Amino acid sequence: MNPSGTAAQTFRAIDVIRKKRDAGELSRSEIESLVSAYTNGHIPDYQVSAWLMAVVLRGMTRAETAALTDAMLRSGEVLDLSSLPSKKVDKHSTGGVGDKTSLVLAPLAAAAGITVPMISGRGLGHTGGTLDKLEAIPGFSVNLSVAQFRRVLETCGCAMIGQTDEITPADRKLYALRDVTGTVESPYLICASIMSKKLAEGIDALVLDVKTGSGAFMKTEEDAAFLAELMVETGERMGKQVVALITDMDQPLGLMIGNALEVVEVIEILRGEGPEDLRQLCLELAGWMLRLGGVANTVTEGKKLSEKLIGSGQALDKFRQMVELQGGDPRMIDDPEKLPRARHTMILSSPRSGYLASLQCEQVGTACVILGGGRERKEDSVDPAVGIVLHKKVGDAVSIGEPLATVHYNDESLAHRARELLVKSYRITDLPAQEKKPLIHRVIARPGEKN
Amino acid sequence: MNPSGTAAQTFRAIDVIRKKRDAGELSRSEIESLVSAYTNGHIPDYQVSAWLMAVVLRGMTRAETAALTDAMLRSGEVLDLSSLPSKKVDKHSTGGVGDKTSLVLAPLAAAAGITVPMISGRGLGHTGGTLDKLEAIPGFSVNLSVAQFRRVLETCGCAMIGQTDEITPADRKLYALRDVTGTVESPYLICASIMSKKLAEGIDALVLDVKTGSGAFMKTEEDAAFLAELMVETGERMGKQVVALITDMDQPLGLMIGNALEVVEVIEILRGEGPEDLRQLCLELAGWMLRLGGVANTVTEGKKLSEKLIGSGQALDKFRQMVELQGGDPRMIDDPEKLPRARHTMILSSPRSGYLASLQCEQVGTACVILGGGRERKEDSVDPAVGIVLHKKVGDAVSIGEPLATVHYNDESLAHRARELLVKSYRITDLPAQEKKPLIHRVIARPGEKN
Repeated sequence: MNPSGTAAQTFRAIDVIRKKRDAGELSRSEIESLVSAYTNGHIPDYQVSAWLMAVVLRGMTRAETAALTDAMLRSGEVLDLSSLPSKKVDKHSTGGVGDKTSLVLAPLAAAAGITVPMISGRGLGHTGGTLDKLEAIPGFSVNLSVAQFRRVLETCGCAMIGQTDEITPADRKLYALRDVTGTVESPYLICASIMSKKLAEGIDALVLDVKTGSGAFMKTEEDAAFLAELMVETGERMGKQVVALITDMDQPLGLMIGNALEVVEVIEILRGEGPEDLRQLCLELAGWMLRLGGVANTVTEGKKLSEKLIGSGQALDKFRQMVELQGGDPRMIDDPEKLPRARHTMILSSPRSGYLASLQCEQVGTACVILGGGRERKEDSVDPAVGIVLHKKVGDAVSIGEPLATVHYNDESLAHRARELLVKSYRITDLPAQEKKPLIHRVIARPGEKN
Repeated sequence: MNPSGTAAQTFRAIDVIRKKRDAGELSRSEIESLVSAYTNGHIPDYQVSAWLMAVVLRGMTRAETAALTDAMLRSGEVLDLSSLPSKKVDKHSTGGVGDKTSLVLAPLAAAAGITVPMISGRGLGHTGGTLDKLEAIPGFSVNLSVAQFRRVLETCGCAMIGQTDEITPADRKLYALRDVTGTVESPYLICASIMSKKLAEGIDALVLDVKTGSGAFMKTEEDAAFLAELMVETGERMGKQVVALITDMDQPLGLMIGNALEVVEVIEILRGEGPEDLRQLCLELAGWMLRLGGVANTVTEGKKLSEKLIGSGQALDKFRQMVELQGGDPRMIDDPEKLPRARHTMILSSPRSGYLASLQCEQVGTACVILGGGRERKEDSVDPAVGIVLHKKVGDAVSIGEPLATVHYNDESLAHRARELLVKSYRITDLPAQEKKPLIHRVIARPGEKN
């Protein structure tokens, strides 16, 4: 069935590099051979980095992108969760500031009867990472073996872990190389990296939250939509149901930024409280997860069911159960005051009266990183307690001297550096903005998927 | 004077890669830092190969090309031949099949009173290499130290050696990387590689023979002219007189292909004999060398002086002297029958009568490589004796059964493989071709250079 046995004998990396350099389309077997030879250490980094740069500048066809995703997926173990009777559905975000929806959605969808096998990443650059947020809960372990992961899933329907050595080793190796060779910024490579990891979870369906705006990696809506369409089509080519929502990241999501602070806000949402934008986005994404997971006929029905599961406390119960199964202290869920807290706070007051016109989102994220809440390099450690609490969002009226944000910090000099950046992020105008950007810009789905 | 001391402190390879990826223009200091960091082993191959691919696909400005040439030139020793009173002029060919002009030109120009410090390469792919041809002369050493090279130059005015460790180490390292990463085919990188090596010889002027046609690396005249213009401008930016001739390589040059066979043909030319095309091209190139070297006022005058130096035997004397100084057996020059000869010959006869319409030149070169006369990989050894002697050139009338070529071989099975390829290279038509391609397509020189 698989011709790569014979293809591998004649495979020469240089031919594949040259073909892509000259804007040719690589065959599935050429892509498979390249990925497998690289994963197995049979071709050197310097050949692969030249190929990656050719891909960045020449692009890939849809067929090539799907073949690359598939080859990366099959470079390691693909979870077989077929013994679990319910549908397996995951959600993935391309990353932003204050984006803590994963922590809400996994228990919420599990409470609805769906299995959510979520493998997440750490924060890098100005964005936060799901694993860092979870680790703000004392005792919580994101380093489960595949067997432990499966046991948590069987018991409570959701589990949240980090990448393992067994899953998509090709992606780990390629990502590390892309990071140091200027070849991160390619929608084709980003698509293959995200989709291979997500599909290795053994899921049936996937909801993608593709962020756009000043705090997103894709600054323009066009770039975000291109990546979203690419991922939806790649998913379809691989026989999975994939839907993408293009959502706003022109200001932070919710009010809290920082690992423990974001867990606090997650608990608020699961209690039926919390800020409106975060609540709305969680319900929209949950609606889609439930619809794709077959427990709701429409997204609207899925949203209503989600609201019910929050109102009844079942979603919060599921979160508490997952925390406990993964070694975390469940008392934190009922008493979030016990989560790590910074020793000091500092208030940023408004220098004038008016309306908050914009909030440079990447700078707010960077301010949190400066405080110690994120990492500039992979090897940096993270302070779970620090962060920023916003008191005003874009469009809000503000009076002179009124608090705009509170900085939670442990190191005074870092706090001053972060504050300086934060001050620059605010733009306050006399009149309110004419139009407000919607939270959800658009939904990208195959024609067969109905809302 | 040199700001690279401070620039190096802030230099990050990733920034330079990204800038070129995004079609930016690199500063002289960025290029210098990259080349020097790579030569010194401070940045890894995988970053440089990504950068090279970005250069291949994004190109370089003239200023960047000159800066890269300069940085590569200054990565090692630059010969100082200022103690020699005459002008230092070299010739460089981009490579072809049967192209043995260097062996004629070095002694010919030296006989005219010019110093020719020629550092050459080996054959690779379907093309021959000057060093392999010289080594067909028993005892001839191309591995002189810089001090020995200088002594030969001082004594006889010309010397021909291979690359040394001291000269342009950046080019050696970059070329080895380009060879395995599909980044050879860039006029900017080819220009910087050629020009840095040639200018490191400490020359005042350079005549470039840029080949075009089926046996050249640049198949089209446009590509050849682009590279030629790039090299002429780069030379000018570096304060050197550079002239480029675009010459025909749509069929082999002369009648003999193969290392010892080509030395035989060189001796014929230096005796005033030999095939007309080779003789003409040597005189044209020599005319330019003598003109740039200041021993002739015009190219025509230079050609006339060259003919005289051949007629008087002075050019051949100079060749004999250089061979002897570099350890070669000078008796070979007077009795070329003593050069290495293959044990067997095989005649290729014409299958029909008509006119030789074309001779696929790259295939003829490859046939010689198959016989053992060239190398497919750098580490291959070369058989000096084997090769091909042509009896007909494009435009010649031919009768059925008449010999087209004689194959000189030592291994019967290789000879059959080479013969098969050779047969396919010939196209014979009923009528002669309407027009014949000129040997010299055009001359590219700065406006200040007169013919």
